[in-house]
Order: sequence, then structure tokens, then C-alpha cells
Amino acid sequence: MNIRIINIGDELLIGQVINSNAAVMSRYLLAQGFYVDRTVVIGDKGDAIFREISDAFRQVDAVILTGGLGPTKDDITKKVICEYFHTQLVLHQPTLDFVSGWLAGRGVQMSDTNREQAMVPASAVVLPNRCGTAPGLWLEQDGKVLISLPGVPYEMDELMRLEVLPRLSAHFHPGEHYLCKTVQTIGIGESTLSDLLEDWELSLPEHIGLAYLPDSGIVRLRLSGKGNDLQKLEKEMDAEVEKLCALAGAYVFAKEDLPMHEIVFKLLCQQGKTMSTAESCTGGYLAHLITSIPGSSCVFKGSVLSYANEIKENILHVSSDDLQTYGAVSQQVVEAMAVNVREKFNTDFALATSGIAGPDGGSPEKPVGTVWIAVATPDGVRSECFHFGNAGGRLRVVYRSAVRAYNMLRQYLQNR
Amino acid sequence: MNIRIINIGDELLIGQVINSNAAVMSRYLLAQGFYVDRTVVIGDKGDAIFREISDAFRQVDAVILTGGLGPTKDDITKKVICEYFHTQLVLHQPTLDFVSGWLAGRGVQMSDTNREQAMVPASAVVLPNRCGTAPGLWLEQDGKVLISLPGVPYEMDELMRLEVLPRLSAHFHPGEHYLCKTVQTIGIGESTLSDLLEDWELSLPEHIGLAYLPDSGIVRLRLSGKGNDLQKLEKEMDAEVEKLCALAGAYVFAKEDLPMHEIVFKLLCQQGKTMSTAESCTGGYLAHLITSIPGSSCVFKGSVLSYANEIKENILHVSSDDLQTYGAVSQQVVEAMAVNVREKFNTDFALATSGIAGPDGGSPEKPVGTVWIAVATPDGVRSECFHFGNAGGRLRVVYRSAVRAYNMLRQYLQNR
Repeated sequence: MNIRIINIGDELLIGQVINSNAAVMSRYLLAQGFYVDRTVVIGDKGDAIFREISDAFRQVDAVILTGGLGPTKDDITKKVICEYFHTQLVLHQPTLDFVSGWLAGRGVQMSDTNREQAMVPASAVVLPNRCGTAPGLWLEQDGKVLISLPGVPYEMDELMRLEVLPRLSAHFHPGEHYLCKTVQTIGIGESTLSDLLEDWELSLPEHIGLAYLPDSGIVRLRLSGKGNDLQKLEKEMDAEVEKLCALAGAYVFAKEDLPMHEIVFKLLCQQGKTMSTAESCTGGYLAHLITSIPGSSCVFKGSVLSYANEIKENILHVSSDDLQTYGAVSQQVVEAMAVNVREKFNTDFALATSGIAGPDGGSPEKPVGTVWIAVATPDGVRSECFHFGNAGGRLRVVYRSAVRAYNMLRQYLQNR
Repeated sequence: MNIRIINIGDELLIGQVINSNAAVMSRYLLAQGFYVDRTVVIGDKGDAIFREISDAFRQVDAVILTGGLGPTKDDITKKVICEYFHTQLVLHQPTLDFVSGWLAGRGVQMSDTNREQAMVPASAVVLPNRCGTAPGLWLEQDGKVLISLPGVPYEMDELMRLEVLPRLSAHFHPGEHYLCKTVQTIGIGESTLSDLLEDWELSLPEHIGLAYLPDSGIVRLRLSGKGNDLQKLEKEMDAEVEKLCALAGAYVFAKEDLPMHEIVFKLLCQQGKTMSTAESCTGGYLAHLITSIPGSSCVFKGSVLSYANEIKENILHVSSDDLQTYGAVSQQVVEAMAVNVREKFNTDFALATSGIAGPDGGSPEKPVGTVWIAVATPDGVRSECFHFGNAGGRLRVVYRSAVRAYNMLRQYLQNR
């Protein structure tokens, strides 16, 4: 049972907008046992859309389109759908009423352009969109299904969860199950890890595969398996995960596919602890990560972002002697930042970063990518100096620093 | 002259990693006059890769692959390329030497797995990769070109800029030019804007198109044109931009496609001014945005992230009476945050945010998405209350707040 995803939009094709929809949709579909054969991005061109629908209906069982359902002239998906299904647009009153109320609530008058959004292909089942003005559409032909969703990410997300996935599961009964297990490692490079795991990897059964996903200093190992008996498959894969951990144990930090800062958040929650940050080169990214998690206010109190040295001195009370003698990017300064913000904000833990994100600011002694990171705890303070290099630019140094900072706190919380 | 982009990788297909490569590559190609007909994501499957290459070579002039060039067993792109081009892998000594030095510099011993990365299809031109261990490849057949690049984003980026684009321009001489002009608006909805621009849009010549890109409270208007005479096309499009601005003038804030915070950064730089932030619900995102810009240390001094109310009181000296009487999400509190951090950090300007990002924390008087934003200036302080709603979740409230905050500062800096 194969599905194809077609994301329509000139803005995607020319690269003005990154295609996050395909990834979100794939994850949902796979979790329900639907295999995605390919995802395609095309422009708002009638003939290209028509051709993709034709190819898809010959090669797969269902196709999900996003995009082209908006109120402006470049939105042509519905017209092409009518052409393909030999049908025409008719007014869908419930959608018109909804759009009317939606606009009224925003103090906007209904216009002809908006009325267009309530016109749907006559043979379509309408999938109500509670987050926007364009409804989703479901059409069938010879047992195959075409689904058309708005391209706005959170509208697509809601429609996928509330309308598309339940209907797909009811319409097709996915026979084979697909399961993924992810183990995360840190502190070992991809090829060294691959050599370490070589024999075990070669011994994996036919229906279980392994992939390596290096990113920002972490290597995620993804085991994926297929089988008709879900329970048996799960047992098999858990056994392989145990073998993997026995080999790579020293480097494994998680058996779930959560980002490092979410793992730390869970530990802090469980232990009833709080944290703060004092950031220089990471510019608030550590704080942004933890505050993107709902409920983070029980563990995160705040930060001082001391981008300029005078802020390190005046607000964080770092000694100006230390700043002069050792420089901002030093063990003495980063430890003082962590200890002082922990005290000032009265939190159990504090993370501090001080480094050179680049591209400028490097020197022979402290090249771009040199970052000192400290974690202040009830027992004192630990720090480490990292050398991330300059490959990948400024933000890559920030992302890698964030992973390492949260990792240091994780190690303390897990008593390692 | 058409190019197809094929991004290979199970991690992309299953949605574990978002496909940013396609967008980056498309932008580069379009800027050089190459039209991308489609971007496709497929898994690390030999037959799927072979089929995509075959289809592409029948339908377009050049195809660029990313992915599958790594050192592990799931990396099979080179094998498929050899199959398609009827060639075999041979050792490329310069790459072997480079990989050897690269690993030595990281204290890692060369292994067979690494040696594999220096094996290249015999008929390929090697595109040296200075950022990683997998070289790029360029192969030709009947005037058509296949390019294979590593999937790691910053490695792909460097190879595109230094190797691929120059070679593509030398090999093909793109006849038709493609030009894009973007105008950015804020404060008007997509469909209202569309109605306002209707007559002008209908009057656009055949070869110039208009698209609407709404995002986080901003609507970008993208004019795209094709033509053989670049200067003539540019003149035509500039004239259309002027007509557009005459109609939508009140809402236009930029005629360049830069994010709001980068526009503000340029203004602060030009005017030799500095800023700080005091953030609650945005959790450091305003600071993260400005510090992601190289050179931001001349304008940005730092922030206090007062996620907990005690930090608003103790560090930002917001009056506890105000916190009790009006609540944290209020004009009084957000203005005090902005004024106090401006003074404390001794900056020309300060931005402050206080709101409810959700999903919890809302009330009938202050529902999720209620955000007060203030900008403190040499002349005093301005504030505004926004109602972003809860559609799209927590981070959407954060992103929209950031746009509005930087917009308020932009308005002051541009005397509006």
C-alpha cells in the first residue's frame, strides 16, 4: 500500500519556502503503516499538477496533494482536480458559512475571492478545516484516493490528524507494519561507529535495516523493520536495540528519538528541579530550545544573555580582571557566568556558554568554533572546551554548543 | 534549460529530517537562470534511484542528486551511478589524501570504510569537497549532466557555490533569464490584499506573474518574470513594483526579501545604535534572531529573559504591585520591562515581550496568543497588544511576536 506526496507551490519550487510539510506528513503516514514511495515538489502549473496526478494514480494507491487551495489567482489545484475527475466546482454551504464566520470574527468583509474558497469539486468529500478558510478534499476513483490539503503547515497538520489518517485507515487496511526504533549516540564519529557496529549490522535479518543520521555532534542510529505481526516485529527490534547498546553503550545517551533539550526537560521535571542560562555566543538559543516545550515554565526561570563583555561584568558580575587576563572565552569566565546566574536566579542548575561563533573573531589561540561551556550545580561547577571548527557557519557552532551544553546537564542529572 | 533535483535519503522520505537542501539548491539555480522543473525525495533504494535518473535524463537537461555518498552501508548512490553510466569505481588519490589528512586532524584512524569514500566512478569529474569526506561528482552523457553531491547541507552548499554553479554556467548557456522581485507587507490579510491589487494583477503582462506568500503576519508579494533581455526585464519589473507600492503603500515595509530582524539590524548599523531585549513568552527568540546575523555584536548587547515573574521583579525591577494588579501580560509590565532593560544595559533601544504562548495559561480576558510588546526608545516607550490566537501552536505565537516586535522598532527607526 503506497502513498505519494505532492507538494504544490512555486514558493517551494523556487526555494523561497522550505518544504516541511512532506516530512510532517511522512512521519504521520509511516506511524500508521503507510509506506511513502516518493515526495515531489512542483510549481503552480496546471499541466505539471495534472501529470503528477496521472502518474501517481498509475503507480500508487493514494496521493496527497498540498497547496494551491488559497484565494488568489495562483491557486489552481481545484481546477486541475475537476479536470482530472471530469467534474465541476459547486458551492459547499457549510464551508461558506464557516468562512463567513471566520472572517467576521476578524472584522473582515466576505468578498468574491473568499466565496471561491467554498467552491469544491462536486464529487469530493469535504474535509472541514477548522484552522483556515480552505477545506480539504477527498476524491476516489477505482479504489484509489486523492486527497487535497491546504499548504499552510498547521492547517495541513490538523487536517492530517483529524480527517486524513482516520479515513485512510478505514479505507485501506495496511497489511504490513512498519516500525522504527532510534538510538542516539554522542562523542563518536559516524565512520568509527560504523566500524564498531559492522559485524552486528551484517548480522541483521533481511527485514530490519540500519541507517546513520549524524547531526550537530550526535549520531542517531535508526533501525527500521517491516512485518505482518506487529508484536513479533517489536520484540525482534527490541532485541536488536539491546545488542546495539551492548556494543555502543559508552556513547548511547537515549533510546528515544527526542532532542537533547527535551530529554533534559523530562529529567528536570521528574526531579522537580529548575534551571537558568547565561549565554554569550549562543545568543539565547539554549533558552529558546527549552521554552519551545509546553510546560517549560516549571523548570526554566530565565536567562542573562551577556553578548557584550560589559554585560558579563555589570549584570553577571564576572571579574573584570578575569576578563582582561583570560578573555571572555575562557574557563574562568564561563564558570563565573554559570555560578553567578545560578545564584542570581536562584535555580538548581545553570548552563553558560562563551565562545566564537564566527565567521569573524577567531585567533590562532582561539579559532572560530572554540566554545567554553559550563554547568553549575548544587555540587559546584563543571566546564569543558569544545572545538567545533567553522564548517557550516555561525549557526552550526550555536546548534552544536546547545547540544553539548544540554548534554553536560543530562550527564549530571543521570549521574554520569 | 531544465534541471531536476533529486534528494536521496530514507531519513528524508520518512520525515525524520526536513529537506532544506532542495530549497537552497533551487534558490542558487534560479539566480543563475536555471529553471528547476521538479524536486523529488526518494529513499536509499537502488531501483528507485536508477528510475529517477532515467526519467530525468529523458525529460530535463541536468539532474542534481544529493545523498547516499557517505561511508555506511545504506549509502548506495555511487553504485547506482556506475550501473547507469556503465562504469566502475576507481581510487581517486587526491581524495584519499584529503580524507586521510582530514581524519588525522581529528585524531581518527583511516579505515576501509573511509577508503571507500575516495572511490569514484571512473568516468566522473571529481568536485573536491573541502568541508567533508565525500567528494562531489560530475558525469556527462549526450550533452546532459548528472551531478552527485553529499547530503550534508553545508557540504552541499559549498559544492554548489564553488563547483556546480560555475560549471553549469560554463556547460549550458542559459538563454532565458528569470528574475524575482519581492515586496513585503504587514498589517493586511492575504485576501484583502488580493482584492486591493486585483485590477493591477489582471493587467500584468503574460511573462510576469504574481504570487502571495503569507507567513507569521507578513504577506510577501513575489513578482517573477522571464525574458531574453535581462535589462529590459528588470526595467519592466521595477515599473510593476512601483505600481504595486502605489496601491499597497500603507502596508509595504520593504522592497527586499530580507527577514524583519535583518532589516532592523541594517538600520541599527547604519544609525550606529544598540539594542537589548527583555523577553518573557518569546523565551530568547528575539535575541536568537539578531545574533544569528554575523556582526550583530555591534548592535546587540544582550538580554534578560524573565520567564518567571520573580525574575521580572528581582532582575528587571518591575513593580510587584503592577504584577499583582495588572498581571505579567499587561501594558504596565511590558513597558517597565523594556524601559528597565534599556537602562540597565545602557542601549539606545530595547524590545520587551510578555504574553501567553500556550497551549496552557489562557483565560477569557487573556486568551492564548495574547501578547503585549513594547519598544523603549530615547523618546520614551510605545507598546501594543496583539491577539495571535492559538492556531499553529506555541512556536507560531513566538514567531509572530518576534515579527511584530522587530516591526515596532523598524517603524521607529524609519520614523513611521
